[in-house]
Amino acid sequence: MLEIYWGSGSPFAWRVLLAAELKRVPYESKLLEFSKGDLKTPAFLALNPRGKVPVIRDGDVVLAESLAIIAYLERKYPEVPLLGRTPEETGRVWSAIAAFESYVRDQTLPLNRWLFGDKPRTTEIDDARAAVGREYDLLEARLAKHDWVAADTITAADIVWFPTLRTYQRAAARNEARAREVNLHPLADVYPNITRWIARIEALPGYDKTFPPHWRA
Amino acid sequence: MLEIYWGSGSPFAWRVLLAAELKRVPYESKLLEFSKGDLKTPAFLALNPRGKVPVIRDGDVVLAESLAIIAYLERKYPEVPLLGRTPEETGRVWSAIAAFESYVRDQTLPLNRWLFGDKPRTTEIDDARAAVGREYDLLEARLAKHDWVAADTITAADIVWFPTLRTYQRAAARNEARAREVNLHPLADVYPNITRWIARIEALPGYDKTFPPHWRA
Repeated sequence: MLEIYWGSGSPFAWRVLLAAELKRVPYESKLLEFSKGDLKTPAFLALNPRGKVPVIRDGDVVLAESLAIIAYLERKYPEVPLLGRTPEETGRVWSAIAAFESYVRDQTLPLNRWLFGDKPRTTEIDDARAAVGREYDLLEARLAKHDWVAADTITAADIVWFPTLRTYQRAAARNEARAREVNLHPLADVYPNITRWIARIEALPGYDKTFPPHWRA
Repeated sequence: MLEIYWGSGSPFAWRVLLAAELKRVPYESKLLEFSKGDLKTPAFLALNPRGKVPVIRDGDVVLAESLAIIAYLERKYPEVPLLGRTPEETGRVWSAIAAFESYVRDQTLPLNRWLFGDKPRTTEIDDARAAVGREYDLLEARLAKHDWVAADTITAADIVWFPTLRTYQRAAARNEARAREVNLHPLADVYPNITRWIARIEALPGYDKTFPPHWRA
């Protein structure tokens, strides 16, 4: 059976769990603990020398990197397509994924560090807010007219964007003053369509199984 | 006919030209000049609001982001597959692409800025050199045993890695003292297998049409 190695709260691992749930591929959950060093054991480093999750094992195939795992699952389990049903849709899905990877993924990091910390706001934070905001504005406009990020059904584009935005939503709720200061809270006021889209994903069958266990604690 | 909008020296645009050549898809070359502001005209911003190349137009389809364009071309023109012939190969190809995008693409930027400039070397440069070096070491080891990055034929993984490495090779040849100082020159001594792989790609049919015109000047 497909094994998925993941860690609670890793947005990249979350993508893979969501893909498996949406595709209804049975899998064995291998939940690793960051704090226990599970990702740096010789056994895990043999699966992924970079010591990161997600990793899958499917028979003889061992694979790291969330996007690669999603592309693999799409070829191996093509029912419930997540990477587009036509060339154009495939292009749209990957375009939304590439935009996230190039213009959002790393840009959110200084913002989150500031949000969770007690350091003063710098121009770096304001620049990150502006960069992330440009992309969130585009997403908000898209979701004003469509239920999903890249097609008329859920695709890998939704799966790639969701964990980071859901993580942000949680972070803001725990650091309200700072999140308000950069006009990113309450998310339902700033980005109502994104907020409704988050709720739409949370209502999907199988979603609960992917929810970070340590967030419930 | 497929139109490809590109700019001389953009590694991302170069990927798309290489993909079209390898797939032998006829295309109309739309070479834009960065210095003339061609990417910020209303006409171009209508194609890509982010004002970046590459962009393609194929009938009614307009698409930005190099990886999305490659995924589109793969679905539309599946002969000469570049994204794998089996699920496992597809996983390997995307894994090599994702590794580049996550661990190399942005990490090369401070290194290149330093190489071309006259600022002193800082720990940021040394950290970038170490990070990039870890990934180049993995690639060098792979290419010691295989001709291509992710399969036994050329794939999109080679196309994604190549333009950045070829650009680095040129930069180092023009800033030899600095490149030597961080042990990245001559590339043929430091990374002989990567250097041979670069030559292998340069020998491909159609390669000359993709070569940055301003490099010849």
